[in-house]
Amino acid sequence: VKHTFRRLDDRRRFWEEALEGRAATHALAGRADLADFELRRELKHATAGHGRRKGEVYLVGAGPGDPDLLTLKASRLLQQADVVLYDRLVSPAVLERARRDAELIFVGKAPGDGPGTQEDIHAQLLRLAQQGKRVCRLKGGDPFVFGRGGEEVAALAAEGIPVTVVPGITAALGAAAYAGIPLTHRDHAHSVTFVTGHEPAAGAGTDWAALARAGQTVVFYMGVANLPSIVANLVAAGAPASRPAAVIERATLAEQRIVTGTLDTLLARANAARVQSPALLVVGDVVALRDASAGAEHVVQLHEARRA
Amino acid sequence: VKHTFRRLDDRRRFWEEALEGRAATHALAGRADLADFELRRELKHATAGHGRRKGEVYLVGAGPGDPDLLTLKASRLLQQADVVLYDRLVSPAVLERARRDAELIFVGKAPGDGPGTQEDIHAQLLRLAQQGKRVCRLKGGDPFVFGRGGEEVAALAAEGIPVTVVPGITAALGAAAYAGIPLTHRDHAHSVTFVTGHEPAAGAGTDWAALARAGQTVVFYMGVANLPSIVANLVAAGAPASRPAAVIERATLAEQRIVTGTLDTLLARANAARVQSPALLVVGDVVALRDASAGAEHVVQLHEARRA
Repeated sequence: VKHTFRRLDDRRRFWEEALEGRAATHALAGRADLADFELRRELKHATAGHGRRKGEVYLVGAGPGDPDLLTLKASRLLQQADVVLYDRLVSPAVLERARRDAELIFVGKAPGDGPGTQEDIHAQLLRLAQQGKRVCRLKGGDPFVFGRGGEEVAALAAEGIPVTVVPGITAALGAAAYAGIPLTHRDHAHSVTFVTGHEPAAGAGTDWAALARAGQTVVFYMGVANLPSIVANLVAAGAPASRPAAVIERATLAEQRIVTGTLDTLLARANAARVQSPALLVVGDVVALRDASAGAEHVVQLHEARRA
Repeated sequence: VKHTFRRLDDRRRFWEEALEGRAATHALAGRADLADFELRRELKHATAGHGRRKGEVYLVGAGPGDPDLLTLKASRLLQQADVVLYDRLVSPAVLERARRDAELIFVGKAPGDGPGTQEDIHAQLLRLAQQGKRVCRLKGGDPFVFGRGGEEVAALAAEGIPVTVVPGITAALGAAAYAGIPLTHRDHAHSVTFVTGHEPAAGAGTDWAALARAGQTVVFYMGVANLPSIVANLVAAGAPASRPAAVIERATLAEQRIVTGTLDTLLARANAARVQSPALLVVGDVVALRDASAGAEHVVQLHEARRA
């Protein structure tokens, strides 16, 4: 192998693939002879004109923050990637799971960035993959829920770059579990909707009447900045002021904070607690079922707004 | 340690906790003296009247099927649990990740089971935890999305049993990633709704007009049996017959199958492909964005219904 591949990177890649291939299967079955045969065949195959490897992109959900919520698959691909492009919402603790010698590139957009940023990301992903690199595109939460992952897949697929999509724990699931709030419940919520609170809250296309209905749970992502108008729109559309609601800041991290109340009281409480982005707004009767003792072990709920 | 704990189980538990505690931190920092001190302190503490340990329950999302989609946390707790209670939707490959000597108990409900089953599960969880066991309650997908996890948390909390909730990749996220269908998209879907297709489809409380609106994605869980009435209700409520839709059977497993079409054509295609439960129904323009090449590596899409 050392003769065939002069670069350490190429050797590592060969071994990684071999350890998942037929040679490994034979070896595990105790057939050293067949394993040896397969390994030599793969080595010959690798040198026969396949000199330059084609790059690929892993579009990976990094989960809501707690690195323990990475999937096994995400964790493995993060270890394999030569380069990692990560968003603003990916927690440092997750990045620590990347391969020690991987190149880490921050591509997070700050509010106010122009529309060019997304195209820049596509160009960077494309360039790195075309250099033959294994690129891990890490996105907070799940890549297909408010992550613009669909656009990145389309841009790469158009250029023939192989993409593997790895789902992640989207923020609503992480927040609900760590806050002890069931998103659905036989008696209280037969559906759950994830909606972005980021766009102009009174914007065209938002069906406030539908979001205001009873018997469901609605989670607004990135909803803190627009909290006043979201609450106002829900109430105007018929939601009772007594409907339970919660804001969950930095869900699943040690700094997680939860402010609970009703559509009537939540705004004042969130202001008093100085809740900041990133945070989720959860609206629905299930919030009242919250069992604080059922959260994850290590999450400390500091400064919870008093139920004054 | 062997002197203090006569049972292998207790010794393992002591070491597991010690390896996550201060002693381990000191040892990693090269301070063997402090590590030794801490370990002795913890040992003394463990014997001072804490004779019988209190049991606890981990309410763990097992993800959609591919065991690689377990979270690191779920995988770890599955290794720690003395006993595992699992549902019908938990895949055998996931169960293989349980501790070798753990007791595995099937508590899946079959369609037609009486209402007593859920109470039986509560009673079993309670009994095992009160025996001092570490109980892993494994649920397909995420425990707080159509998993009745909220009811189990409430039943255990009422008896003072500590519960840790671990979110999982809910089926919609797994299916979307492995099928290459973004659930939200800046141009096509500003929200995604998960709704159960299990209850009588024309049942009270389902807001078909809201589900029929454009600009969103709707995922029906357990929707195959009611596919005809779901499609009919959506169209009656104003959804265009040309709206893209897909049925995804056994999402994320090697046997995953995907049938795509429109509200007009899907039913016939699903019937032709003999789609069976468990399967998800995804409705929305995002289905047309599907990039089959962007799914996960190992999923083979067999027998896909022809686009006749």
